[in-house]
Amino acid sequence: MADEDPVAACVSALVAASITEQQATALCGQFAYSADTAGFADSLMQTNQGLNTLYLLSTGALVFVMHAGFAMLCAGAIRSKNTMNILLQTVMDAAVSAIAFYILGYGFAYGIGNNPNGFIGDALFGLARWTSHSSSNDAGANWQAWFFQWAFAATATTIPAGAVAERLNFNAYLIYSFFISAFVYPVVVHWVWAAEGWLGYARLASYSHLFRSGMIDFAGSGVVHMTGGFAGLAGCIMVGPRMGRFDSNGQPVEMPGHSATLVVLGTVLLWFGWYGFNPGSQLIINYTASAAVAGRAAVTTTLAGAAGCLSCLLTAFLRHKAWDLVSGCNGALVGFVSITASANVVEPWAALIAGLVGGWIFDAVCMLFLKLRIDDPLSAAPMHGFCGAWGVFFAGLLAKKQYICESYGRDCDGYVADGLFYVGDGRLLASQVIGIISIFAWVFGLMIILFGGLKAINLLRISAEEEQAGLDVSKHGGSAYNYDHGLGKPEKAQALGL
Amino acid sequence: MADEDPVAACVSALVAASITEQQATALCGQFAYSADTAGFADSLMQTNQGLNTLYLLSTGALVFVMHAGFAMLCAGAIRSKNTMNILLQTVMDAAVSAIAFYILGYGFAYGIGNNPNGFIGDALFGLARWTSHSSSNDAGANWQAWFFQWAFAATATTIPAGAVAERLNFNAYLIYSFFISAFVYPVVVHWVWAAEGWLGYARLASYSHLFRSGMIDFAGSGVVHMTGGFAGLAGCIMVGPRMGRFDSNGQPVEMPGHSATLVVLGTVLLWFGWYGFNPGSQLIINYTASAAVAGRAAVTTTLAGAAGCLSCLLTAFLRHKAWDLVSGCNGALVGFVSITASANVVEPWAALIAGLVGGWIFDAVCMLFLKLRIDDPLSAAPMHGFCGAWGVFFAGLLAKKQYICESYGRDCDGYVADGLFYVGDGRLLASQVIGIISIFAWVFGLMIILFGGLKAINLLRISAEEEQAGLDVSKHGGSAYNYDHGLGKPEKAQALGL
Amino acid sequence: MADEDPVAACVSALVAASITEQQATALCGQFAYSADTAGFADSLMQTNQGLNTLYLLSTGALVFVMHAGFAMLCAGAIRSKNTMNILLQTVMDAAVSAIAFYILGYGFAYGIGNNPNGFIGDALFGLARWTSHSSSNDAGANWQAWFFQWAFAATATTIPAGAVAERLNFNAYLIYSFFISAFVYPVVVHWVWAAEGWLGYARLASYSHLFRSGMIDFAGSGVVHMTGGFAGLAGCIMVGPRMGRFDSNGQPVEMPGHSATLVVLGTVLLWFGWYGFNPGSQLIINYTASAAVAGRAAVTTTLAGAAGCLSCLLTAFLRHKAWDLVSGCNGALVGFVSITASANVVEPWAALIAGLVGGWIFDAVCMLFLKLRIDDPLSAAPMHGFCGAWGVFFAGLLAKKQYICESYGRDCDGYVADGLFYVGDGRLLASQVIGIISIFAWVFGLMIILFGGLKAINLLRISAEEEQAGLDVSKHGGSAYNYDHGLGKPEKAQALGL
Repeated sequence: MADEDPVAACVSALVAASITEQQATALCGQFAYSADTAGFADSLMQTNQGLNTLYLLSTGALVFVMHAGFAMLCAGAIRSKNTMNILLQTVMDAAVSAIAFYILGYGFAYGIGNNPNGFIGDALFGLARWTSHSSSNDAGANWQAWFFQWAFAATATTIPAGAVAERLNFNAYLIYSFFISAFVYPVVVHWVWAAEGWLGYARLASYSHLFRSGMIDFAGSGVVHMTGGFAGLAGCIMVGPRMGRFDSNGQPVEMPGHSATLVVLGTVLLWFGWYGFNPGSQLIINYTASAAVAGRAAVTTTLAGAAGCLSCLLTAFLRHKAWDLVSGCNGALVGFVSITASANVVEPWAALIAGLVGGWIFDAVCMLFLKLRIDDPLSAAPMHGFCGAWGVFFAGLLAKKQYICESYGRDCDGYVADGLFYVGDGRLLASQVIGIISIFAWVFGLMIILFGGLKAINLLRISAEEEQAGLDVSKHGGSAYNYDHGLGKPEKAQALGL
Repeated sequence: MADEDPVAACVSALVAASITEQQATALCGQFAYSADTAGFADSLMQTNQGLNTLYLLSTGALVFVMHAGFAMLCAGAIRSKNTMNILLQTVMDAAVSAIAFYILGYGFAYGIGNNPNGFIGDALFGLARWTSHSSSNDAGANWQAWFFQWAFAATATTIPAGAVAERLNFNAYLIYSFFISAFVYPVVVHWVWAAEGWLGYARLASYSHLFRSGMIDFAGSGVVHMTGGFAGLAGCIMVGPRMGRFDSNGQPVEMPGHSATLVVLGTVLLWFGWYGFNPGSQLIINYTASAAVAGRAAVTTTLAGAAGCLSCLLTAFLRHKAWDLVSGCNGALVGFVSITASANVVEPWAALIAGLVGGWIFDAVCMLFLKLRIDDPLSAAPMHGFCGAWGVFFAGLLAKKQYICESYGRDCDGYVADGLFYVGDGRLLASQVIGIISIFAWVFGLMIILFGGLKAINLLRISAEEEQAGLDVSKHGGSAYNYDHGLGKPEKAQALGL
Repeated sequence: MADEDPVAACVSALVAASITEQQATALCGQFAYSADTAGFADSLMQTNQGLNTLYLLSTGALVFVMHAGFAMLCAGAIRSKNTMNILLQTVMDAAVSAIAFYILGYGFAYGIGNNPNGFIGDALFGLARWTSHSSSNDAGANWQAWFFQWAFAATATTIPAGAVAERLNFNAYLIYSFFISAFVYPVVVHWVWAAEGWLGYARLASYSHLFRSGMIDFAGSGVVHMTGGFAGLAGCIMVGPRMGRFDSNGQPVEMPGHSATLVVLGTVLLWFGWYGFNPGSQLIINYTASAAVAGRAAVTTTLAGAAGCLSCLLTAFLRHKAWDLVSGCNGALVGFVSITASANVVEPWAALIAGLVGGWIFDAVCMLFLKLRIDDPLSAAPMHGFCGAWGVFFAGLLAKKQYICESYGRDCDGYVADGLFYVGDGRLLASQVIGIISIFAWVFGLMIILFGGLKAINLLRISAEEEQAGLDVSKHGGSAYNYDHGLGKPEKAQALGL
């Protein structure tokens, strides 16, 4: 928009056109109100900034409330004697990830300094010079972008807590929590979501894209869930199973969680939060196309979760002849994880498939883990790791061209890599596979090293006595529950032989 | 907006006006920026789409979180041995209703195919051709509309769970859940909310309206709450009271819920969700009038809930000489149900009356149920059914003309049917009464048939042994609670004679 | 905007400029579409109203959900025998404050009647004539403003519940609840947030400002948290410590809460709600500057909470050699309280300082309370009162000029009172100190009188027998928990000697 006064310019032009100044002034005055046009453009731009800010703030808050969900889910799914431990881990994850992501993580993810590259960001540490050094000015150089991205970082950070529950040393957890949110996770973000990242579909047009396509991972089946899930896998492999989880014949012994109510509360809060996680990931909403993507993401998310829920519930019923509540809850979460990569680009019927098949994969991996004597109390690795990978793969199958163009601002008249089902040429699917392999290798490799190192210096696992007594009594100064009249107090209950 | 280039057109015009082309070009160039006018209109329209999408997504997510509220409220209000059963019903309701509403329900509610009619929709099944076959293009043909409407369907579906708690067969519940969300509820929606529906105030102007008015049911005191409440009534009548609920003299025996904390958590989460339920029901927010309606709905909702809470609390205090927590919680919910039909069109002081009287009605119906030996563990029928009907009736009394015009886009200079209190002519109130009768007859009739049929094939109720043991142990493979040291495990507790 | 038809005006002007009418019509017709300019301005204004309405509704709902947080936090942190009592207080606070704020409170806060003054509002009672009598037309004369402000009033009202828990008479609590939300709190709001208030930074430019500055209290470290916290202090001083809280030597006896899970749930829900509390307090979001403020508030809130959490966790670890969950939770809340006054105007690194130092202050005041034998079961006074004061003071140290101009619409070329650290002249800090003293004196003074009066007529505290038995049994008709097989039922448990 020109900043010059259009009325004055009009007068000059008319005078030059041999009209008297007086006449020209009268004439041009009629158009004076159109001088506000530039003002409107500016006002509308400001309105859009406000709208997009509200969009990220409200969806970011929903992503954060998933912490309440994780806390309740994790607490309910483990034994009561370790409740305070896992709750503190969840609260700590939010706090530690905030500070780690502020000091380092956001910079590694989105900072563009002297040496822009596809692997890692190199500026923005402590949000220094963040208006000039963000990887994408529109999406990155604003306060709410940090907030929104941090909420995702906190999610990735807290997923592994369930996998290592009931026996990990709390100090080890602190180290892990800082490491993943400051470094491991942000690097994956840079690969896939930063405008410079080597792996992502949304990479700047000026760079070359992997297989002329790049990986579609809308809200992070790969970036968030695979990262969290496979970090958890590394943890639960290195720390080993809980005492008594497998009997002397290697057969699993049930260790039911202490409150199904908390499991449901956690699940429904996570479901609630996913309506920020997925619909918010379009990042802007002031266009018809972006609004459609946000709306569609809510639909596909709902349907995938519903399908996953029923898939796991029925699978469990066929196996145990009982309607298992925890299976239904896990199934819904599996459905959400499975659609998170492609919630923006698939049809509703495809979302049902994502959730349905996700449920089967989850069940199969859980069975495999028991065979391999891997003890993942919350099934975090099968859910977030393996179903996250399924979600990424699924996008390569069923991403629809028209929806890709809407979400990524592409011109559908040109070449657009899309899903194999739509007679895509396989470039997208190949990118998805490379993405799965790369994220797995990076996360699992680094985490095996970290947890291995902690194990080597004997900092990884609590002692057998502490595990027997429970982490709450041994590390956190008491019990989570203290009902009146002694109920819930271990010493009294023990005295009664309960 | 003209799509032609206005600068070129301007030059032509001036040239025709005997100004040289060079001069004309210079002149018209000054107005070039006003060529963006069409662009602004489009940009603003896109902004409005984004705003309205965010509005429905964020309020829809709040409606969904009511599932967390229902789950906790129901769990807390029943005995712990049936906790997993009712929790699973709530989770299942969300999943089953999503799939049922996708395949069939949304089509019955809003689909306009070859045979548009006031009774039932006939297209849009599986969201097929949904941009052309929606009953209202603005409100229906977008992804977030399905999401928002599904969240309401899920609410209606889950309300009856409380009425049939602790003794209904889980398989029967699955059948019920699909039936109501796929068919019974969507038909009511079509009547009242679809642009073609025979009953609704918002019916298209090209159709004739019931009594020249139609029924006002803004957010569903009738559509959602009466449907859920009277479905629950049919269920709890057909399934009969819980074992031991009435003694041999027919006197009620208290069966207190197992956790008042969960009741409060559920209540406050429902309260929270109601700020999506009511303020979101204007469906668009990009006009001064619609924004005012959304804001007013938040105010009236708050005041009605507050009045209902105090109304029930004081009534209970007068009766029992104790400040009863559950009564206060129920009262708040009663207040919300009572204002939901008219939250858009009544004054704040009227909202206080809606909640206050709603509390009395609730109390009276609860007393009546005990007399009639109807066992509704959550008081779902008195709350949602009867107070829902009260809410619909109330709109006929106190709907204010000015607010009706704001909310329904009417011209207040013309005829507008309004509340009897404002010297309305009774057409609105008559419509409300017809609406109450119609919804009750449809829902209660179909549900008596469904539950009666299930009873006839002996699929409705669990066995006495299962009821004694609790549904969790008999159908869901265990207990909801497993505190360490044996507390909470039935067999150990029983051994101790607890 | 001119309302005249610009095409007709254009034609007239050109005709006057010796162009034929036919030619002029042809020419001017090219600009006809710019006649929509006034329409665009109006449409955009309406869009902005919709946007700002959605902003206040969604952030207001988040503020309300803090009630779920307070309820769970308070319940979890006290003994189970008083659970229903404190839960009912929280629910009641929401209901009573709604009615009190509707009838009186909002008028005392924002009503501008015949006698506008800096101390108290004098109109708007029952929202009468609220479009003409609001203290600020933009921010006050709309429905959602009442809703948003009420949610804050409810928060201030419920904070003291924790300080007086487990021994206050419920009738006394009812009186207190009405008094604070109808009068005490609204007066403070008027001082600081109303456009006429004598104390606030945002006072109308036409009034003189305290020290040419006024007090910055963005979202209410002072207005909300000091008010609630010091009301609680007055309460817990007047009602005295719980029986057995201090032994015969005056040494404190631990009275652990009955559920750490509820404490965490409450904390995370409060954290979630704070993303409405702080980012919503800019009140409008349709400008670049206000959007930036809202976004920044989310960032500083997150970082202050994180720093507070770690600060308290480490302090507790150094003292007890255990990772104390409740300390971590309290710390996060302390961090939020500490940043609430200045979330709009400080840098992220400053937010870390606010939380870190807030944690130390909280810890020191808690220790002091034990020395003074003040029994505040939830540490409400140290957290909300003292750290609220710290938050107000902190704004005087680190409020940044550029951000003040963004948030308060000031011209940074003129004089702007800012934080001492930025070589401010101390006027802002002096205003903050006057604010702290004034709010403390007003609230603490009135509350000592209220609670003292209730004590004088023996209405303040329950009897020793009732306290021993627990409020739930003695006043609320039972126990909060009734697990099957008798677990949780006091009489059975007592019979067993548990």
